[in-house]
Amino acid sequence: MKLYDSRAAPNPRRVRIFLAEKGISLPTEPVDLARLEQKDPAFTAINPLQRIPVLELDSGEILSESVAICRYFEELQPDPPLFGRGGLEKARVEMWQRRAELEFFFPIALAFRHSHPAMKEMENPQIGELVEPNRTRAINFARFLDSELAKRSYLAGDAFSIADITAMVAADFARPARIVFPDDLPHFARWRAAVAARPSASA
Amino acid sequence: MKLYDSRAAPNPRRVRIFLAEKGISLPTEPVDLARLEQKDPAFTAINPLQRIPVLELDSGEILSESVAICRYFEELQPDPPLFGRGGLEKARVEMWQRRAELEFFFPIALAFRHSHPAMKEMENPQIGELVEPNRTRAINFARFLDSELAKRSYLAGDAFSIADITAMVAADFARPARIVFPDDLPHFARWRAAVAARPSASA
Repeated sequence: MKLYDSRAAPNPRRVRIFLAEKGISLPTEPVDLARLEQKDPAFTAINPLQRIPVLELDSGEILSESVAICRYFEELQPDPPLFGRGGLEKARVEMWQRRAELEFFFPIALAFRHSHPAMKEMENPQIGELVEPNRTRAINFARFLDSELAKRSYLAGDAFSIADITAMVAADFARPARIVFPDDLPHFARWRAAVAARPSASA
Repeated sequence: MKLYDSRAAPNPRRVRIFLAEKGISLPTEPVDLARLEQKDPAFTAINPLQRIPVLELDSGEILSESVAICRYFEELQPDPPLFGRGGLEKARVEMWQRRAELEFFFPIALAFRHSHPAMKEMENPQIGELVEPNRTRAINFARFLDSELAKRSYLAGDAFSIADITAMVAADFARPARIVFPDDLPHFARWRAAVAARPSASA
């Protein structure tokens, strides 16, 4: 098995943190996004959608999509459970994973892609009108998270889950997107410190 | 249990098709999107993110996010499996569900929201620059699906799955987004006819 990876992008980090939480280590192969290596014919043959991360299985089969790769390892090694245990908990984790992705990770990624000079070639044309509304959406979601995290330790309950991974990677990615979270969000701040202190955070 | 629903939006249709495939029927409560009822205080108290569908459990707990609601019913009633069976199949379904969503459903929804006169108030401001690139992305993905569907019956394998539901709802939603799929995609056309012929398609 081999993971096509990049230190320069948030999605592969989601998978690296997930694997670190599971205690799984894997050979990786770097894909140089600065060189647009993901658009080279060699990589396009691996993932026609030209995105990373990609997991290559020993059979040669390819799995793309961060959450699908994580799901594969969850099934392979259920402990510790990062997608929840039992029907209701699994549904809660899925709901919060998706909320974190759709309302936090994606707006932050859009603000980054449409504002950062390094993205000029990859996001062509950059649409300036997308930047401020998406920054605002991300900040609104941080405020919503703050109110929810007043009630429990982590996004989906009292156990750390893949929803926290999505949200922590997004929150860290807010810096290059030049999004500054308000400082009156004590529960959000407590949660950020807690997830940042986990050994997996440096994966 | 009760499902907050609308006939006018594609996301609730994903859940209705899923439930029809499982043979589950559920009381529903309509939310009038034309009246922006999802933004009313009463509905905002149910889902602060102001989106439908929402499942209200007998305990009063709320589950939002179409895929999370579907996951809940998959766990409650595993047959027929619509998220795959076994680790590898589950990962494949998740990969194709996400590809269908990110590369097909979302671009089609963006093209619709930023072009349709009925969306002027909800998507304010509409950004015209988003329309054509997203139409093109959707068409490119239909072409990619055609090449994949040359190899198997359904998106994620030889069994119908939630990935097909996402893709069929997206393909139908292409019409109000004024996206016309090319007519040289025989496998895509065969798949569309097959999913449209299922009784669940009218759900």
